[in-house]
Amino acid sequence: MTSSQTWIKNVTVATLEGPGYGLLHDAVVGIKGDEISYVGNAKDAPAPAANDEVIDGTGQLLTPGLIDCHTHLVWAGSRADEFARRLHGASYADIAAQGGGIAATVRATREASEAQLVALTEPRLRALMAEGVTTVEIKSGYGLSLEHERKQLRAARTLAETHPVSVQTTLLAAHALPPEFKDRGDDYIDSVVDEILPTLAAEGLADAVDAFCESVGFSPAQTERVFAKAQELGLPVKLHAEQLSNQHGSALAASYQALSCDHLEHLDEAGVKAMAASGTVAVVLPGAFYFLRESKLPPMAMLREHGVPIALATDANPGTSPILSLQLMLQMGATFFRMTPEECLRGVTCNAAKALGLNDRGLVKTGLRADLCLWKCSDPAELTYQFGTERLAACWHQGLRR
Amino acid sequence: MTSSQTWIKNVTVATLEGPGYGLLHDAVVGIKGDEISYVGNAKDAPAPAANDEVIDGTGQLLTPGLIDCHTHLVWAGSRADEFARRLHGASYADIAAQGGGIAATVRATREASEAQLVALTEPRLRALMAEGVTTVEIKSGYGLSLEHERKQLRAARTLAETHPVSVQTTLLAAHALPPEFKDRGDDYIDSVVDEILPTLAAEGLADAVDAFCESVGFSPAQTERVFAKAQELGLPVKLHAEQLSNQHGSALAASYQALSCDHLEHLDEAGVKAMAASGTVAVVLPGAFYFLRESKLPPMAMLREHGVPIALATDANPGTSPILSLQLMLQMGATFFRMTPEECLRGVTCNAAKALGLNDRGLVKTGLRADLCLWKCSDPAELTYQFGTERLAACWHQGLRR
Ligand SMILES: [Zn+2]
Ligand SMILES: [Zn+2]
Repeated sequence: MTSSQTWIKNVTVATLEGPGYGLLHDAVVGIKGDEISYVGNAKDAPAPAANDEVIDGTGQLLTPGLIDCHTHLVWAGSRADEFARRLHGASYADIAAQGGGIAATVRATREASEAQLVALTEPRLRALMAEGVTTVEIKSGYGLSLEHERKQLRAARTLAETHPVSVQTTLLAAHALPPEFKDRGDDYIDSVVDEILPTLAAEGLADAVDAFCESVGFSPAQTERVFAKAQELGLPVKLHAEQLSNQHGSALAASYQALSCDHLEHLDEAGVKAMAASGTVAVVLPGAFYFLRESKLPPMAMLREHGVPIALATDANPGTSPILSLQLMLQMGATFFRMTPEECLRGVTCNAAKALGLNDRGLVKTGLRADLCLWKCSDPAELTYQFGTERLAACWHQGLRR
Repeated sequence: MTSSQTWIKNVTVATLEGPGYGLLHDAVVGIKGDEISYVGNAKDAPAPAANDEVIDGTGQLLTPGLIDCHTHLVWAGSRADEFARRLHGASYADIAAQGGGIAATVRATREASEAQLVALTEPRLRALMAEGVTTVEIKSGYGLSLEHERKQLRAARTLAETHPVSVQTTLLAAHALPPEFKDRGDDYIDSVVDEILPTLAAEGLADAVDAFCESVGFSPAQTERVFAKAQELGLPVKLHAEQLSNQHGSALAASYQALSCDHLEHLDEAGVKAMAASGTVAVVLPGAFYFLRESKLPPMAMLREHGVPIALATDANPGTSPILSLQLMLQMGATFFRMTPEECLRGVTCNAAKALGLNDRGLVKTGLRADLCLWKCSDPAELTYQFGTERLAACWHQGLRR
């Protein structure tokens, strides 16, 4: 027997409406089907029907389900060996000369079957879900050919079908130069815009398109070719921008109404203003900042000043952020980037939804998707402050408790 | 029916014997009662008896159970509010003026009952255990009076009795000056050495004695009074040393054959040499280094050069390391302190055992305690490299699978 409606009573709700937490004390939240049907004070809440389910939140905190809006979750192979070699003194150049780095991940990912990629990714997805993630973005970018980029994105779609979590896929064919295109970046971009993008877009495998605009990645001109094709295909764009140097990629992305620009340690004020004007979200990635022992901080004050929404994500990937924990990113966002706990929570809920172009989630609000987390605490600052203890008391994805 | 012996076959064992991992491939480990009864190659292993239990390790990695050798796990209250206030711009002085900082934790811990402390600590202990911790050190130091230090240590003992984990208790009465002794540090040390230490030692509540030797803590002279009393009572000593400045506490501690000196960012070569001569372990604490955004590194090269054993621990505490994850410390030990994966694993096994004065654990070796972890990987570097996915396949504490 299915209850017609679920009522979560006796909770403190961080609705995220307004600029801060949007706290509602002694509140009740209703779920009907896959939607939030009611959010309000206990005294105004309608009486549950006889066959409704009523859950006592015992004063705990209810938030939107968490959204990890930047991951490279589907990969094969391990880079533990090169991590160890580096700690024993090998340089990045040594590693690259031995076929390591991203080339190693591309090789292993190409060798893996779609089913193997699904199996390898599952524990990573489960780690995120265990912390309350209800929507996760997954990029391709280790296939670097039509066949293997397709395989990565299909693995991501399969994971969404087989797990109670929503997946947004991003085609990141312009992530690195595949070995068969060595020294022929423009030729690879030809193949990306002429073949990979249109084919995978037609197959419905890409919800957005991303690129790595960097001196060691693709130039702004090459990036723009990718964006122009995405626009033509009706796909929104995102960009790995200004991570290692200022390529002015963010302003370029903003001119294509990018959903987000990500990393941004080297972003300048012109880029910030362009992002503000286009409504582009700044996705900061403290895991990569940490793992690469970066010292240059993203321009947080400038982003705030110009009202650019800030999101936080894991950037989970084997090379620069092998950290499968969005909750750790809250702690690191505060500690490294001095984000307030309110900013951190908004960064993995409402602003992460914006970074994915999703306006049906990220808030606790009537009519939105019933993606909800109930936490074993009442002060939302706890989610950012203490790391490591089991925090999640319950989680709903599209109205179903998982 | 209890099997008379358990055989874990088909494993790669990191025995930790010798200087590195001490790897043994295609190995078999036997458990009899609470001890390791056999460690060797599959081909040399005796045939299991009919009623023995045989576990197929499927090629996975077996290591000693992990040891977290420095925690302040028993506390009440939360400092999430002051964490948030600081991120909103309040200074440490502002927080202290409002009764925050360690004073807030002391107040809350004194107000809590022993049963409440047990209940509050349990999820923290469970978080450590879920990552493979089989022995954990727990310090007092938020009670700061006979009654309340006793309550903290009794809570730690109760947790050991009610959970399949071993607890070593450390009396840290000389952690901070309690409010009733404001500006009377020597008087408080009188009470520590005349009353708290002898009473709690007689009650069997302290396995070791620790102090916080720092400009904002206790002077070397005060620290020495604590050490002298501990020595008189037959208790080994440890020290929070050279964290914020060089007080030469490590050399002092070494002169009392301290088990360990902990933190050590400001340790000099004389201190390193003294530690090497006394066999004192250097316990480095990357969680506090991270949370306090410390830039000065412990003198890792010098510690290695002089052969000082290095251990890694969480320093789990509400003020400077609210991070309940020893596995994250492996990753941070490598990333911040450039420890190799071998050093990281030794830091939470054999060297952590040394830091607690325990010679019955920390290696996979016949005759030692059967505290063992089976991991979902075969390369031990994985334990340091990737963080966040569920890693532990099985864990034995004193021969019992938990
Ligand atoms: Zn990325
Ligand atoms: Zn400590």
